[in-house]
Amino acid sequence: MNLFGDKWTFLSFGESHGRAIGGVLDGVPSGLDIDMDMIRTQLLLRSGQNAVGTSPRAKNEEDEVEWLSGVMDGKTLGTPIAFLIRNTDARPEDYEWMRTHFRPGHADYTYQQKYGIRDWRGGGRASARETAARVVAGSIARQELEKRHISIHAELVQVGNETNPKNFDTLLKQIQQEGDSIGGIVRCTVEGLPVGVGEPVFDKLQSHLAAAMMSINGCKGFDYGTGFDMSKKGSELYPEGQVPCVSSGGIEGGISNGLPVVFRCAFKPAATLAQRYKGRHDVCIAVRAIPVVEAMTAMVLINI
Amino acid sequence: MNLFGDKWTFLSFGESHGRAIGGVLDGVPSGLDIDMDMIRTQLLLRSGQNAVGTSPRAKNEEDEVEWLSGVMDGKTLGTPIAFLIRNTDARPEDYEWMRTHFRPGHADYTYQQKYGIRDWRGGGRASARETAARVVAGSIARQELEKRHISIHAELVQVGNETNPKNFDTLLKQIQQEGDSIGGIVRCTVEGLPVGVGEPVFDKLQSHLAAAMMSINGCKGFDYGTGFDMSKKGSELYPEGQVPCVSSGGIEGGISNGLPVVFRCAFKPAATLAQRYKGRHDVCIAVRAIPVVEAMTAMVLINI
Amino acid sequence: MNLFGDKWTFLSFGESHGRAIGGVLDGVPSGLDIDMDMIRTQLLLRSGQNAVGTSPRAKNEEDEVEWLSGVMDGKTLGTPIAFLIRNTDARPEDYEWMRTHFRPGHADYTYQQKYGIRDWRGGGRASARETAARVVAGSIARQELEKRHISIHAELVQVGNETNPKNFDTLLKQIQQEGDSIGGIVRCTVEGLPVGVGEPVFDKLQSHLAAAMMSINGCKGFDYGTGFDMSKKGSELYPEGQVPCVSSGGIEGGISNGLPVVFRCAFKPAATLAQRYKGRHDVCIAVRAIPVVEAMTAMVLINI
Amino acid sequence: MNLFGDKWTFLSFGESHGRAIGGVLDGVPSGLDIDMDMIRTQLLLRSGQNAVGTSPRAKNEEDEVEWLSGVMDGKTLGTPIAFLIRNTDARPEDYEWMRTHFRPGHADYTYQQKYGIRDWRGGGRASARETAARVVAGSIARQELEKRHISIHAELVQVGNETNPKNFDTLLKQIQQEGDSIGGIVRCTVEGLPVGVGEPVFDKLQSHLAAAMMSINGCKGFDYGTGFDMSKKGSELYPEGQVPCVSSGGIEGGISNGLPVVFRCAFKPAATLAQRYKGRHDVCIAVRAIPVVEAMTAMVLINI
Repeated sequence: MNLFGDKWTFLSFGESHGRAIGGVLDGVPSGLDIDMDMIRTQLLLRSGQNAVGTSPRAKNEEDEVEWLSGVMDGKTLGTPIAFLIRNTDARPEDYEWMRTHFRPGHADYTYQQKYGIRDWRGGGRASARETAARVVAGSIARQELEKRHISIHAELVQVGNETNPKNFDTLLKQIQQEGDSIGGIVRCTVEGLPVGVGEPVFDKLQSHLAAAMMSINGCKGFDYGTGFDMSKKGSELYPEGQVPCVSSGGIEGGISNGLPVVFRCAFKPAATLAQRYKGRHDVCIAVRAIPVVEAMTAMVLINI
Repeated sequence: MNLFGDKWTFLSFGESHGRAIGGVLDGVPSGLDIDMDMIRTQLLLRSGQNAVGTSPRAKNEEDEVEWLSGVMDGKTLGTPIAFLIRNTDARPEDYEWMRTHFRPGHADYTYQQKYGIRDWRGGGRASARETAARVVAGSIARQELEKRHISIHAELVQVGNETNPKNFDTLLKQIQQEGDSIGGIVRCTVEGLPVGVGEPVFDKLQSHLAAAMMSINGCKGFDYGTGFDMSKKGSELYPEGQVPCVSSGGIEGGISNGLPVVFRCAFKPAATLAQRYKGRHDVCIAVRAIPVVEAMTAMVLINI
Repeated sequence: MNLFGDKWTFLSFGESHGRAIGGVLDGVPSGLDIDMDMIRTQLLLRSGQNAVGTSPRAKNEEDEVEWLSGVMDGKTLGTPIAFLIRNTDARPEDYEWMRTHFRPGHADYTYQQKYGIRDWRGGGRASARETAARVVAGSIARQELEKRHISIHAELVQVGNETNPKNFDTLLKQIQQEGDSIGGIVRCTVEGLPVGVGEPVFDKLQSHLAAAMMSINGCKGFDYGTGFDMSKKGSELYPEGQVPCVSSGGIEGGISNGLPVVFRCAFKPAATLAQRYKGRHDVCIAVRAIPVVEAMTAMVLINI
Repeated sequence: MNLFGDKWTFLSFGESHGRAIGGVLDGVPSGLDIDMDMIRTQLLLRSGQNAVGTSPRAKNEEDEVEWLSGVMDGKTLGTPIAFLIRNTDARPEDYEWMRTHFRPGHADYTYQQKYGIRDWRGGGRASARETAARVVAGSIARQELEKRHISIHAELVQVGNETNPKNFDTLLKQIQQEGDSIGGIVRCTVEGLPVGVGEPVFDKLQSHLAAAMMSINGCKGFDYGTGFDMSKKGSELYPEGQVPCVSSGGIEGGISNGLPVVFRCAFKPAATLAQRYKGRHDVCIAVRAIPVVEAMTAMVLINI
C-alpha cells in the first residue's frame, strides 16, 4: 500500500494538510554519511521554487526534514531511518470547499468511495505533497548508488507536442497565462549500471521501473527502448551481430545489458486549473516530477 | 524472480527445451470448478495456431496440461495447484548453433553474463514458451473474475503504423514474405471492475498492471488514459463536474473509478528473423501476446 | 527487519536514547475509532509503573504518543498511521560507560560486530523500549479484534520454579533485594477465534505466533498444546472421537479448531543486574512483557 | 501459505495420495553441483526405513525425485528448480473410512471447516508426506551452507521422560508393542555460523527458526538458550565479562554471536494409534522429524 521495496524498505506516511508527512526507511547499511545538502536541493526542485509553470507550496518556504532515528553523528546506524516534514502552511480554511466538492481527474471521488471517509484538505493522502517523502528516501538511495558509480539523470524532453527544450519556457508561460495546463514527457537515463541487473520473468528490471514510475502522481505512461514507436522493422532494429543491442534501451530479457538504461514517463496535464480555482496551480506537473522520477529510479535500483 | 502475487501466488518454472514447463498456483479458494476447455482455447491462441504471422511450436501439436495437485474430481481443494506441460518437441540438435551464438535483441548475452551458464536450447528460461504457464494460471484467475462479473478483453489495435484492423492481415503477410518482423500494440479493456480497486501511493492499480505487462516477453511500453498523447490541454481533458472523468482511463489516484479500465501495451518486432535463421519465426509477437496480456491482467486483478 | 505483517503492516523505528521511538501502521481500515485510553493503559503496564520487580524508565513519567497521520477527528482514514513517543529522559551521560563496554547477555557485542557502529546509549535499537511502539500498534489491532469478539489475555504463570501466583510478589521482592534477576513464563489465551484461522504448511497459526513471541526481547521459548510436556502417551492425549481435541491447544494442522488457543512464552532473567550496575533494573522481565505478548498476539491475528 | 523464504523461495505442493508431491525452489544460484546421493539419504531417513518406531510408507520402496527444470548436466542454471515425487502406492480404497471420519488430533476437522472440501485420502495436504518435499529443498540449501562451512546436526535427545539415548530403542519398542505412541524432543546444533546473522526486532534469527520448526507436523514447542528452564538466576547465567555469553544459545539480540546455535523442538505423540487403526503407525514422530528439522534449519539459514 504505502510500502516500497524489500531491501531498502520504505514506508511513507502523511496527509497534505495533516500534522506532518514523512517516512521510515529500513535496510540502509550502517556507516553511510548522508549528504543533507543534496537532499535539500532535491526537495527544492520538487517544490518547484523559481521554475516556470509550477506552484510552490509557499514562496520562500522550505521543506525542513526532522530526523527521528537511524542516524547518529551524521552516520547511518543500520537501523530504521525515520524522518518527518511538518506541514507548516496547513490552512484548512482555504480548502473548506473541497469538503463537499469532488474535483474531476483527482482522487477525491475514488477515495471517498473506497474509504467512506477522506481527508479533504488539499487532497489529503493523494496530494503530490507525499512525493517529498519519496525524494528524501530516494536521495539517500541515490547517494549510495553514486558510490557504486551509478548515476541517474532525468530531464523534460517534451511539453505538449513541443520537443525542442529551447521552446519549453515560452510554451509554459503561454499556458500559464491561459490559466490552463499541459502534459509533458520526462526521460530518465541511468549510466554505470553493470550488466546483469534485473531478474527474469516477473521481476524484470523494466517491470520494477514501470511500477515505480506509474506510482508517481499524474504519470500515465512508461516505455523504454523502441517503446510505442512502431515505425521500424525487426531487420532495422536488431542488426545481426549487434550484442548487446542499442535499440533494447539497455535491458534484454529483463536484465541490464551494460549500455545506459533509458526510459520515458508520460505525465498528464494538471487537472486543477487556475482558470477555475483560486490560488497558484501547476501548469505542467512533469516539471516538478523530475526529481521524483530520479528518486524512484534510485529506489528501484537499490532494491533490485 | 519467478514469483507473482501474494494472494493467488504463482511460481512459474521451466526451460523451453528442458523436460517441462509449468507452475504452482497457491491461494486459489476451494470449491472452484475449473473450466479446462477455456484453458485449452487460450493455450491454442497463445501457440498461434492458424493465426497469420505466428510460428506455432509444431503444427497440429497441442500443449497438454498435466495436473499434479490441488484439484480433486474437477474441483479445487484450496491447496496449491501444480501443473506441467511437457516439452514434447525438444530437439536440442536444432539449436546446437545457439550454444556459442548470442542473438541480438535476445536474452542470450545478459543471461550468460548474469549466470555464467545458460540453457542455450531455444532461449531456455527466457523463451516466450514460458508464457504458456502464465496462460494456465491466468485463465483460472479469469474464471474466478468472471464469476464476479469482471471481464477482460484484449485486442490488436496497431501493427507498425497501421491502425485499421482490416489491414492487419495483408500487412502481416507482406512482412512475412520479406522474412522480416514488425511491432504491434495490444489494447486491453476491463469491464465490470467496481469502484475502489487499487491502493494509494506505491500499490496503485496502474503500477501493478504496468509491472505485469512489462514482464511479458517483448513488451516495451505501457500506458492508460491520456498516456503518451500530449495533444490536449487540461481544460479539454478534465471538464468541470465530470466525476468520474472519462480521460482518466478508469483509474483515479491509483484506484478504479467504476468506468472501464483501458490500457495499451507496445510490443517490439521479433528479433529473430526468418531472413536470417532457419525455421518458422513470429512476424508480430503482439498477436500471440493477446492471451498473455489477458492472463496477466487477470493475475493482477485477482491479487489486488 | 523492522517490519511486521502484510495486512496491517507495521514498521517500527527508534533508538532508546535517540530523539524518539515510534512506528507507522499501514493497512488499518478507515472509520475505526481509536480508544486512546486503552493504549495509555497498556503503555503504563509495559513501563511497569507500580509493579513489583520492574524498572520504570522514570517515576511518574508517562509515554506520550504523538499522532502524525492517518487519524482525523479521532477516526482512522485508511491511510498510514504514524506515531512517535519522544525520549524525554534521554541523558546520554549516564550511559557513557556503555560506549566501550559490552554487557554479557545483551546485543551490544552482536550489534557492534554486525554494523561496525552502534548507538551505545542504553541499548539503542536493541533496548526493550522499542516494545512501546509495538504496544501502540498492537493495541489498535486488539481493538479491532474485540469488535470481532476475539479476546486476548496474557498472565504470568511461573517465576523461577514457582508456579503459584500467590507467591510471586514475595519471590520477586526477595530477588530484588539480592540485586539479582529471575526468569518467568507468560501464558496467553485467545478466546473467540473462529475455527479455520491459519494456513497449512509454512503459515501455520503456531508458526506466526512463535515467530512473533520469539521476537520479544528476552523470550527464549514458545510452546502450545502439549508443548515440552513429554509425560503422556498418545492414547491419553487423543481419545477416540474427541474432535476437536482438547490437548491440541486450540490448533490442529496449523488451523484454529474453535477452542481457546493457549500458548506459553518463556522469558530469561534480565542480564543487567542491580548488584553490578547502578540504576533500577528489572528483576523479572516477564512482568513487563505481558502487554507486549498481548500486543504481538493481536498483530499476528490481525495479519493472518 | 505453502511458500517459504524470499531469497531461496520454496513453493511446496501435493496431496498425500494425489498424483504427486513436490516443489519449486527459486533463487538458487547458478553453477551449483547438486549431490543427489545426499538427497536420497535424507529422504530415506525421513521415510524411516529400518528405524525403530516408524512407519515407512512401503517397505523397500524409495521416494524417487523427478527433476523438471533448473538443472542441466547436473548443474543449477539459476532458474527455478522444479521437482516431483510420484505417489506410487496411492491406494485410496484403504482410506475410504477417512472420507466420513475425523481423526482426533489431526487436521481432518479443521480442513473440512476451513475449505468445505478436503482430500480425505491419508491426510491429503496435511499429511507428513509433504515434508519429503521440504527435505529435497532443504538438502540443496544445506549443500550450499556446507560450502560456506556451516554445518547442521539434529538428534533425538528425549523420548517421553527418558533422556538417556541408550534407552530410546527399548522404550520405543515397548510403546510399539502397546500399540501406543509417545512424544520426543529433537535438539539441533548449527556450527560455523559467523557472528552477525539475523536481524533486529521482528526478523530475529530465533523468530525465523521458531516459525520454521513450528511449521513441521507435530512440533509443539521451540526453545533455545535457557529456554523453559527457570532454575537459574541472572547472576549465574550472565557472568560479568562473558561476551559472547554461553547461556545465550548462540544468539544475542536476535543476531548470531559466533558460538554454536543450539535449539530444541518438542514433538507430540502421534495421534493415529496402532491400537485403534489398521496398518503401521509411527510410535514417535520425532524420529522421522530429524531430517526435516535439519532441512528447515537449512532453509532458514539460506534465507536470512
